[in-house]
Amino acid sequence: MKINHMKIDPGMTTLQLIEQMGKSGVLGAGRMYRATELLAEVISDEETTVFLSIAGPMVPGGLRKIIRDLIADGHVDVVITSGANLTHDLLETFGGSHYREHDETDEELCQMGMGRIGDVYTKAQDFEVFEKKISTLLEEIAQKNNQLNIREFITEIGNSIQDPESIICTAAEKNVPIYAPGIIDSMLGLQLWMFTQENQLTLDAPGDMHELSDIVYSSKKVATVILGGGLPKHYALASNILTGGVDAAIQVTLDRSEAGSLGGAPLEEAKSWAKAKCGSKLVTVIGDATIIFPLMVAGAREKLDK
Amino acid sequence: MKINHMKIDPGMTTLQLIEQMGKSGVLGAGRMYRATELLAEVISDEETTVFLSIAGPMVPGGLRKIIRDLIADGHVDVVITSGANLTHDLLETFGGSHYREHDETDEELCQMGMGRIGDVYTKAQDFEVFEKKISTLLEEIAQKNNQLNIREFITEIGNSIQDPESIICTAAEKNVPIYAPGIIDSMLGLQLWMFTQENQLTLDAPGDMHELSDIVYSSKKVATVILGGGLPKHYALASNILTGGVDAAIQVTLDRSEAGSLGGAPLEEAKSWAKAKCGSKLVTVIGDATIIFPLMVAGAREKLDK
Amino acid sequence: MKINHMKIDPGMTTLQLIEQMGKSGVLGAGRMYRATELLAEVISDEETTVFLSIAGPMVPGGLRKIIRDLIADGHVDVVITSGANLTHDLLETFGGSHYREHDETDEELCQMGMGRIGDVYTKAQDFEVFEKKISTLLEEIAQKNNQLNIREFITEIGNSIQDPESIICTAAEKNVPIYAPGIIDSMLGLQLWMFTQENQLTLDAPGDMHELSDIVYSSKKVATVILGGGLPKHYALASNILTGGVDAAIQVTLDRSEAGSLGGAPLEEAKSWAKAKCGSKLVTVIGDATIIFPLMVAGAREKLDK
Amino acid sequence: MKINHMKIDPGMTTLQLIEQMGKSGVLGAGRMYRATELLAEVISDEETTVFLSIAGPMVPGGLRKIIRDLIADGHVDVVITSGANLTHDLLETFGGSHYREHDETDEELCQMGMGRIGDVYTKAQDFEVFEKKISTLLEEIAQKNNQLNIREFITEIGNSIQDPESIICTAAEKNVPIYAPGIIDSMLGLQLWMFTQENQLTLDAPGDMHELSDIVYSSKKVATVILGGGLPKHYALASNILTGGVDAAIQVTLDRSEAGSLGGAPLEEAKSWAKAKCGSKLVTVIGDATIIFPLMVAGAREKLDK
Repeated sequence: MKINHMKIDPGMTTLQLIEQMGKSGVLGAGRMYRATELLAEVISDEETTVFLSIAGPMVPGGLRKIIRDLIADGHVDVVITSGANLTHDLLETFGGSHYREHDETDEELCQMGMGRIGDVYTKAQDFEVFEKKISTLLEEIAQKNNQLNIREFITEIGNSIQDPESIICTAAEKNVPIYAPGIIDSMLGLQLWMFTQENQLTLDAPGDMHELSDIVYSSKKVATVILGGGLPKHYALASNILTGGVDAAIQVTLDRSEAGSLGGAPLEEAKSWAKAKCGSKLVTVIGDATIIFPLMVAGAREKLDK
Repeated sequence: MKINHMKIDPGMTTLQLIEQMGKSGVLGAGRMYRATELLAEVISDEETTVFLSIAGPMVPGGLRKIIRDLIADGHVDVVITSGANLTHDLLETFGGSHYREHDETDEELCQMGMGRIGDVYTKAQDFEVFEKKISTLLEEIAQKNNQLNIREFITEIGNSIQDPESIICTAAEKNVPIYAPGIIDSMLGLQLWMFTQENQLTLDAPGDMHELSDIVYSSKKVATVILGGGLPKHYALASNILTGGVDAAIQVTLDRSEAGSLGGAPLEEAKSWAKAKCGSKLVTVIGDATIIFPLMVAGAREKLDK
Repeated sequence: MKINHMKIDPGMTTLQLIEQMGKSGVLGAGRMYRATELLAEVISDEETTVFLSIAGPMVPGGLRKIIRDLIADGHVDVVITSGANLTHDLLETFGGSHYREHDETDEELCQMGMGRIGDVYTKAQDFEVFEKKISTLLEEIAQKNNQLNIREFITEIGNSIQDPESIICTAAEKNVPIYAPGIIDSMLGLQLWMFTQENQLTLDAPGDMHELSDIVYSSKKVATVILGGGLPKHYALASNILTGGVDAAIQVTLDRSEAGSLGGAPLEEAKSWAKAKCGSKLVTVIGDATIIFPLMVAGAREKLDK
Repeated sequence: MKINHMKIDPGMTTLQLIEQMGKSGVLGAGRMYRATELLAEVISDEETTVFLSIAGPMVPGGLRKIIRDLIADGHVDVVITSGANLTHDLLETFGGSHYREHDETDEELCQMGMGRIGDVYTKAQDFEVFEKKISTLLEEIAQKNNQLNIREFITEIGNSIQDPESIICTAAEKNVPIYAPGIIDSMLGLQLWMFTQENQLTLDAPGDMHELSDIVYSSKKVATVILGGGLPKHYALASNILTGGVDAAIQVTLDRSEAGSLGGAPLEEAKSWAKAKCGSKLVTVIGDATIIFPLMVAGAREKLDK
């Protein structure tokens, strides 16, 4: 099949641009097109349960609203993420922000009370507010029920806050479960630990697996969209091993495969483990998720709207 | 400064999407926005001479028309590229194509007479036609003038073909010089060598430097857009050393910097060599140029149209 | 300071080679030398508690014995790893192996009952044995104590097996704690979950934090060696936030920093978060840990022997 | 085949370490072992002509002596490199050096007259000496013969200097040809251009191809060792297309393949182009050449000594 060259028309929509990438169909452009097509397909298919795995600093990196909107509009059915993204979501709910355009050294930032994630900055004051608010929340939650699985715990937080912009709050409202198997490894986890030193609150990690397996078993098809690697990637794929693997998967990553890390592993590898079905649709886009994911979502949502 | 979260509106134009990335302003999204802004700025500034350095398989990868249109519309003033991209441009002019969607092994492809560049494929028959046509062209050119610098040689080719879709042809028409200091290392170079075994045709490599230095000296400002690394990147930056360096540069690459290769080197490094001026505007976007460059061009051209 | 060129003498020891890299002192070679020096320094310093964070397939990738020996010889005081590396350690303890040199597709591997990690392969039969043996172990452990933190749980496993080659077993013998905050996301975690569906066994995730903070508070200095990113990297750094950060850190990774992922983040960034002290010694080597870590350990151990 | 775990014995030689990597045989460690074995094999095989392609800052990065020794000891038969590496070789011959351990910004370095390549630094004074000395050399060479191909020009330089540590000088002595198809794009090329503005000296780029094709045709087998990408990689592979491709190739790179750049392209791809023979032995090691190449050479030379 012949390659057609992409054509730029000023003012073209994002979908029109992505369709030009599809006309070419090779290298990154081809993968970008196929990923967008697949995303639109799995979202619009009523029989497909859509998982979204979010590793990396997606909330600090400006994707909070895009993720929140996907949940609010019913395009995502299950979220798997890190404790860090939950922490940063709450940080904004509690009045904090993420900042940019600093040029201090890391040692200077430390003295100023600022934490750095690439070129994103946080303020210690915002974390202090976070700590106060979250400890009040933890008390409220523990009074109601001091034995929860991690998903229930996150839902409880979502039910306790009023912030339409929050991923956690929106997910709670829309009954979209959020799983965070590594929640303890985060500022939220640290607060949780400090709380449990003087209070009774038990989080049952294996408990989530019951729910997750129910979701997988009751889904006709499962698709998973994976931003970054780590636990959120593995947990999404591994939870589908029970039914022979996902039916479709999209991953966006800058990690590479040669050293064998899961983050950089090709999705094809998941087939050998029955974490992706034989014949499943798998697309990887190599790139920075803060560029690739907004482009993909814009294209897919435009396609859905048609 | 606070980070705003990106918002996707289905049907948004590419510039609208990129402006959302600018509202966030961090990580890849921030760089994508700043690169697009800078591209629009240098194109629209009458005093800035715009260089475009093209390494990597940009013609096979579907960018031929985007590059040709930038030249045709006067947005690019100087092109620096590899012999390979020139070869692939002519391959299509002479009736050949680039192909996709093969799943043979490299050994099978070899037996089928197909060459592979990632997931782009070429056919031996197309190269055979290329060889016949280019040797006729070489004869015509050598008859007129058998002592040329490389740029003149490429312009002569451009003048000898009628293909409005060709980068070489369009550049010749628009008086946009194309430099290819490593031209000999390509299929075109191989044909050139074979031709010179029985014919007289001398290409003067240093000869280009006279012209290029004239361009640099007569430019009020120079901006360079760099796709990939290698000779095209270095040549563009090094030729500006004569006037203290470029005023602006944009690079798109997946190479990394730690091993010291030029391809992955941060543009900042060029300042130490006086290849980029102190205070020059420099933006690097990490990503696949077949995704990033179309997006950037679409955004910049939309902005120019306003 | 002038760079000296490296000199190869056939038969030179690994330390002699690394010292040549130090004579050059730049690019990867310089980082390799400084990392080896730092590793030898923190191991030999009685006042420094050495953490080892292991993400990625280090046990499948042939590093099991190197890690086990570091623990056995008292060179590592705390291990933080993934559930996967624990699973693969036990897989071998229970008679299984890791395999190489297969050329089947992932779909064929799936049908053959083989899982793939890069070019490492596993057999379903080995996992079946693992499942049987681990469920017996879980019963024994639960009978003794059905409320454990994750570290205690891993130590219990270590105490229950007799395998001098096992990381888990050796760590238990040497009183080296192993933390695995994401343990649930692994085959071991899956078995744990299945076991808890019919049996009583609670793993207290926050529980580990008490211990870990005691270790950090009682250490004069802490150094952490980080292979790969993910939870094991973050957990090691974050647990030192309580005392203002680690005093030294070495990381080996192929991840890159631009998209903001923790795996690729420069260690310097940890200073802004007080996860590494101002003035702490930090070295990153970009490379494949299965090459870089054995080379570094060989060099450091040779230095220690002198 | 089962994987054996690597074992570190303090004081082990580099070959012993690499043989441990071979016992494991997977991921980077396996590739490191296979590359070392292949290097020893092609060097020791009298029928194999060994090409060495050197891109990236290998001379500034401390590899000058390792390369020079390989040439001096008859282990390398053809060198293909960039004008930059030749420039930096001569810079040291003329009394200059490469420097390390500066922490100035690039703008400050520029004002100090220092150029930066990663963490390698150069001094303007050294380049001034280089300029004076090279222009004298150019005069001498042009007086003898003002029409040379590039290889002859480099050999003439080698014959004109007395520096046993120089790659160019040693290669000239040992009759090892050095090809640099992109020579013009370097400080040496810039001097050449300035010289030709007032003097007669023509470098015939296609001229090298005659010689190179003679070498390829007269070799029973060809192996190529490739450090980095760019022209040196392509030229080595492409010159072997005439005889159906190389018989063996080793590449060391940190570039990746997805965007289609030659630097990151898998060696297998060369088979489709008949630049590597079907059945040829091909090994890629992902890593920083300043670490990987010294380790590989140390291992291979130790093996040869046995």
